[in-house]
Amino acid sequence: MRADAATVDVLIIGSGLLGASLGLALTEQGSSVALRDASPTALRLAVDLGAGRMGRDDDNPRLVVVATPPDVAAAVVVEALATYREAVVTDVASVKSVIAEEVRRCGVSLARYVGSHPMAGRERSGALAAEIDLFRARPWVVAPIPESSREACEMVRELALNVGAFPVELEAGEHDAAVARVSHVPQLVSSLVAARLVDMPSVGLGLAGQGLRDVTRIAHSDPRLWASIVAGNSREIASVMREFADDVTRLARALEKSEGDPLAPGLTGEITRVLVRGNEGVARIPGKHGGAPGRYSEIVVLVPDTPGSLGRLFSDFGEAGINIEDFRMEHSAGAALGLARIDVAPAIAGEATHHLMKLGWEIIDGLK
Amino acid sequence: MRADAATVDVLIIGSGLLGASLGLALTEQGSSVALRDASPTALRLAVDLGAGRMGRDDDNPRLVVVATPPDVAAAVVVEALATYREAVVTDVASVKSVIAEEVRRCGVSLARYVGSHPMAGRERSGALAAEIDLFRARPWVVAPIPESSREACEMVRELALNVGAFPVELEAGEHDAAVARVSHVPQLVSSLVAARLVDMPSVGLGLAGQGLRDVTRIAHSDPRLWASIVAGNSREIASVMREFADDVTRLARALEKSEGDPLAPGLTGEITRVLVRGNEGVARIPGKHGGAPGRYSEIVVLVPDTPGSLGRLFSDFGEAGINIEDFRMEHSAGAALGLARIDVAPAIAGEATHHLMKLGWEIIDGLK
Repeated sequence: MRADAATVDVLIIGSGLLGASLGLALTEQGSSVALRDASPTALRLAVDLGAGRMGRDDDNPRLVVVATPPDVAAAVVVEALATYREAVVTDVASVKSVIAEEVRRCGVSLARYVGSHPMAGRERSGALAAEIDLFRARPWVVAPIPESSREACEMVRELALNVGAFPVELEAGEHDAAVARVSHVPQLVSSLVAARLVDMPSVGLGLAGQGLRDVTRIAHSDPRLWASIVAGNSREIASVMREFADDVTRLARALEKSEGDPLAPGLTGEITRVLVRGNEGVARIPGKHGGAPGRYSEIVVLVPDTPGSLGRLFSDFGEAGINIEDFRMEHSAGAALGLARIDVAPAIAGEATHHLMKLGWEIIDGLK
Repeated sequence: MRADAATVDVLIIGSGLLGASLGLALTEQGSSVALRDASPTALRLAVDLGAGRMGRDDDNPRLVVVATPPDVAAAVVVEALATYREAVVTDVASVKSVIAEEVRRCGVSLARYVGSHPMAGRERSGALAAEIDLFRARPWVVAPIPESSREACEMVRELALNVGAFPVELEAGEHDAAVARVSHVPQLVSSLVAARLVDMPSVGLGLAGQGLRDVTRIAHSDPRLWASIVAGNSREIASVMREFADDVTRLARALEKSEGDPLAPGLTGEITRVLVRGNEGVARIPGKHGGAPGRYSEIVVLVPDTPGSLGRLFSDFGEAGINIEDFRMEHSAGAALGLARIDVAPAIAGEATHHLMKLGWEIIDGLK
């Protein structure tokens, strides 16, 4: 019985946001999960949330997932390789090269190690923020080291698929260069934009719109976690930050040189160049649904701000058999109504709009 | 009849996004609106959309709203003051000092001029993007010049209130300093972050998450419009950009100096400082509903990705009389379900969660 209980599919070391979410997802789809954490309280919480059972000394896992902060991940991986002789070991840290180097320096039987990085997270951290489908339909980078065995890679790919993610195999360096641009530098820049708000008069902050809120949303992120992520990928981030700093400095100089004259020679050209490059760059980001941007048609409906009106709207969609691909609500206090922005398949957008108008909904998008 | 038709409440010069949206809103609440635009096609479109009637030579408006691009706004204001002898004249440009200076230099009877700036807009421009409640529950800055009469200010405040905005009186310089921080610099930075994506491999772009999408959303903005906005506020933007450039350069240096060593002296401290300042700054942004951030409690519900399920969810809210303060949908292609993030008043959050669980909804937030 005891020995039997000790056999476990997956041992997760580190029961924070990623560890606990992974435990919840694996438990739900039938895997047996054991949890370990340096903090007994954090461990207790994750177990209470249903992310798995307490780890035990005689655990004999097939797979060990290291979900600790990145700055200790390599050491924990090395220890796990030594402790669990038959297990494949992976980590889920946001940086890969630095960990791969340390593991290769200190590790034994490296064939059983494969790095990985699920592209999932939230501004909030800790098991309390855990979500059962945190990984669903998100990319999960599988980053083998030269020594990794095919079997080990396969097991990590399987792990990703089991929790609804799609595996993407990348070399550690490729991964680190990519996340520096799509994740780490955007995080730092968002924080630096938000930093500009610390000392400004609050009347000015009252003028903030959705644009500022979007740009600074991730400035809410946990400094301790992000400091170790950024420090762990400092080489790649440094080169992207340098490009960025040069662009910013060049723009600042052009603005200073104009001395407040809107028609100063070169100023408009410099600003326009920045904005056009921005258009080009953002157009390359795949749409929320993995497709090209604008893959769906937006319908904008005026919704009275009263209980049940959104319900009526969505019931009307449902009864018409129109699936809602995405949804965004815009409204503010004082407004007696809100704007529902609804994405539907382009093929049915016209029909859907017509249907809603027939039912008496005011379609703002109908003006377009 | 002709003379009678010529009396009009508001003449809007410039029928782009702001002009057309304003025309729609004013027409809806019963004001008579005439429209003018340098482009006959743009004018025709706005009139066809219902934003008002064609302007005529014998128009005799009480109020003239200049909604042209900022780089021509001052000249149009000056002309309007000379042409419409009894009318109060305002503009809605995103920059105020530069326009106030030019108007004071060239204008006659300045008592009839008041600058203004509705804090409303979209990534898209032109009448086609017009929305009848673009201004609803948004701040509308009223920026008088020293010569402005009380009556003129009152009329512009009234205009803002008529379209559902709330007037905020600011001196032109205060306004320009504020929007440099909360709007113009965030726009330029968003574009510069997106610019980093132009030359990267597309496999890396596949790793993009919501954070990058949020930070770069406004990088879709219209370069022509924004070039004139930024050029028109270059002095204020220059000083904020300089602060920003210094922070970025300092961070880039610290990253370079570490030469890829995550534990390099000073590195973690420097990064943490940036992230903590970001936390402080973003915490100062008023919540979407004008209140403090986190004024509402979030309930996260798992929603099957099938027609009608959102409808059922919202009907359940409606029948329970629970008002939805805000709503966000998270899901991706391939996922058989989505996450509905629903804000409700904290007082009823517990009851609402309980109610939904009783009805069989899976509450992710229940885990927290």
